[in-house]
Amino acid sequence: MTHPPGNFTLTARSGSARCGVLETAHGPLDTPAFMPCASRGLIRALDTADLESTGLQIAICNAFHLSVAPGEDVIARQGGLHRFIDWGGKLATDSGGYQVFSLAEPKNLTEEGVRIRSPKTGEWLLLTPERSLQIQNELGADLVMCFDECAPFPCEHDYARASFERTLRWAERSREAHQRPDQVLFGIVQGSVYPDLRAESAERTVALDFPAYSIGGVSVGESREQMLEAVDTCLPYLPEDRVRYVMGVGTPLDIVDCVMRGVDLFDCVLPTRNARHGLVYTWSGTLRLKNSAHREDERPLEEGCPCPACQRYSRAYLHYLFRQKEVTAWRLLSLHNLQFYAGLMRKLREAIGEGRLGELRGEVARGMGS
Amino acid sequence: MTHPPGNFTLTARSGSARCGVLETAHGPLDTPAFMPCASRGLIRALDTADLESTGLQIAICNAFHLSVAPGEDVIARQGGLHRFIDWGGKLATDSGGYQVFSLAEPKNLTEEGVRIRSPKTGEWLLLTPERSLQIQNELGADLVMCFDECAPFPCEHDYARASFERTLRWAERSREAHQRPDQVLFGIVQGSVYPDLRAESAERTVALDFPAYSIGGVSVGESREQMLEAVDTCLPYLPEDRVRYVMGVGTPLDIVDCVMRGVDLFDCVLPTRNARHGLVYTWSGTLRLKNSAHREDERPLEEGCPCPACQRYSRAYLHYLFRQKEVTAWRLLSLHNLQFYAGLMRKLREAIGEGRLGELRGEVARGMGS
Repeated sequence: MTHPPGNFTLTARSGSARCGVLETAHGPLDTPAFMPCASRGLIRALDTADLESTGLQIAICNAFHLSVAPGEDVIARQGGLHRFIDWGGKLATDSGGYQVFSLAEPKNLTEEGVRIRSPKTGEWLLLTPERSLQIQNELGADLVMCFDECAPFPCEHDYARASFERTLRWAERSREAHQRPDQVLFGIVQGSVYPDLRAESAERTVALDFPAYSIGGVSVGESREQMLEAVDTCLPYLPEDRVRYVMGVGTPLDIVDCVMRGVDLFDCVLPTRNARHGLVYTWSGTLRLKNSAHREDERPLEEGCPCPACQRYSRAYLHYLFRQKEVTAWRLLSLHNLQFYAGLMRKLREAIGEGRLGELRGEVARGMGS
Repeated sequence: MTHPPGNFTLTARSGSARCGVLETAHGPLDTPAFMPCASRGLIRALDTADLESTGLQIAICNAFHLSVAPGEDVIARQGGLHRFIDWGGKLATDSGGYQVFSLAEPKNLTEEGVRIRSPKTGEWLLLTPERSLQIQNELGADLVMCFDECAPFPCEHDYARASFERTLRWAERSREAHQRPDQVLFGIVQGSVYPDLRAESAERTVALDFPAYSIGGVSVGESREQMLEAVDTCLPYLPEDRVRYVMGVGTPLDIVDCVMRGVDLFDCVLPTRNARHGLVYTWSGTLRLKNSAHREDERPLEEGCPCPACQRYSRAYLHYLFRQKEVTAWRLLSLHNLQFYAGLMRKLREAIGEGRLGELRGEVARGMGS
């Protein structure tokens, strides 16, 4: 018996943490899962074969960027996003809300949507829930997002209320506009750092009965404690049998702490952006590869790591490539950091099954503290 | 029975063209062969695994660049250049002469050598035949070059004479300084575009009895006809039983025409530099991938090409990546163009064996003309 896309089956629990399987049009996704940011249809400096090599099952692209170039119509005529980038795994798309609100001016935000200048041509574009879902439907990712307002941080209580209420109305319009039952549509909880608003946003979003839920409006500049408080406030309202996605989070320890609270899905630029800045994740701590300490170090970044960088290159060579600003260093370090994140998610799934989450958290916290 | 490095055995002939096997410390090299430019120890945007995937057997690095960073001492302590970049194939190093003369001012050129500012620290460096060979010995490439002056183009007859005569004296000093019998030292013929000087330079360089010879001072701005004339003038003086390398050449048709004259070894930045500018080689002609004609073209760059770009991506996707200035496009197009050059050299070796060189030349000329 096959389940429809969006069906979420819990396979193990440990405290509030859960392992599950999310059905998608491109097969089952094991959770907890991490989605690297392939905003423009690829992860910077990597190709699709590289993404496959990391062992990650899903990546997230950005509907707004892809609608600007090459255009969702082009991608649709090329057979959709999976085929365009030749990726047999799963894909999600962000609605464009985050990018729009980081680019748009407040005066261009109305009930209808957001007016924004095209970064490509300079012409005015109107992004609305209807338009976002049309783009996302044409792209054809497995997981798609309601068009929401990601309120800035800090933001006043009044603004945060008006914003999440508009996001709720946009959620209804997004659901109405959504055309493809093979795509799982996520409702997005907002409410900034205000517990009363987070609770109300969560309750009213869930009342709209989406097959999956995101906690948005985090990872926008608030503290780690504020992020975890927002997650803590929202989670009790989210149904057990729907997948839960915290958007834009985070460091390895952030992910562990959210998983322990019952979050299933993550995306973050950190592993790849940090790679391009020479920050390397290992299980005994982060390395700053630029440091001259690595100049003649014959060891791999991490002993036993299966990534292409560790399988054949020394820290000395990678240090040299990074110092020379060779884009090959971006690629090799990104492959390593994504392998680290893939390993982290695998270890989290195993630890939930084996009741060893506390132990794993200790290991991650020690590494991050070093 | 094994032959010492530098031993060159002819295995097939067709007119003046030859197939051969050059013995090196890292095994036999099949000629005619092409060496991509891995000046700083890697080809821009590629890693060593990528180089392996092209099927090319050898690459050329730059002794001067590597001595500036990370330093030949660092590389020597890391076990030499092959181990530092983890390449089991063959390597050549340029003496640094070409780079030095493109960077140095004429007044800093003396009989002793060339004074040049370090591009890294700004301090004055003195590059001499002795220093160049010391660097090349420490790096440990299989094929190494005498320190020569690559005269500019255009250049007066008097200057060209003084320059090649100094290059001859530097060749003696280079041979004297050279320490490692496992490295094959190439004598370099100069003489600019002057047939009398080319002939004299070739004759007197061969009189020094090097195990291998380069024709230098071409690909510096002269016309294709001038390049071929210089090659035609030098070749009769070079012994049949020594490998012959024309430095910095060239386009596919240049390579074919030099092979037909009896040249065995080539290096050129064209396949990789052109890739970074969106110029793609195919057997039916070059493609300018930036052109909007490719925007929705579902075909691969070249049907049947085994490169990673052609195996999975459409021209439409590669066009998009290139237009977005994604460095992944540099990598994928470089892999394709190197695969094209590797295929060209394989076809040349086959065509020599089968007496079909004229036919192959026609195929290349038609493709390049389109």
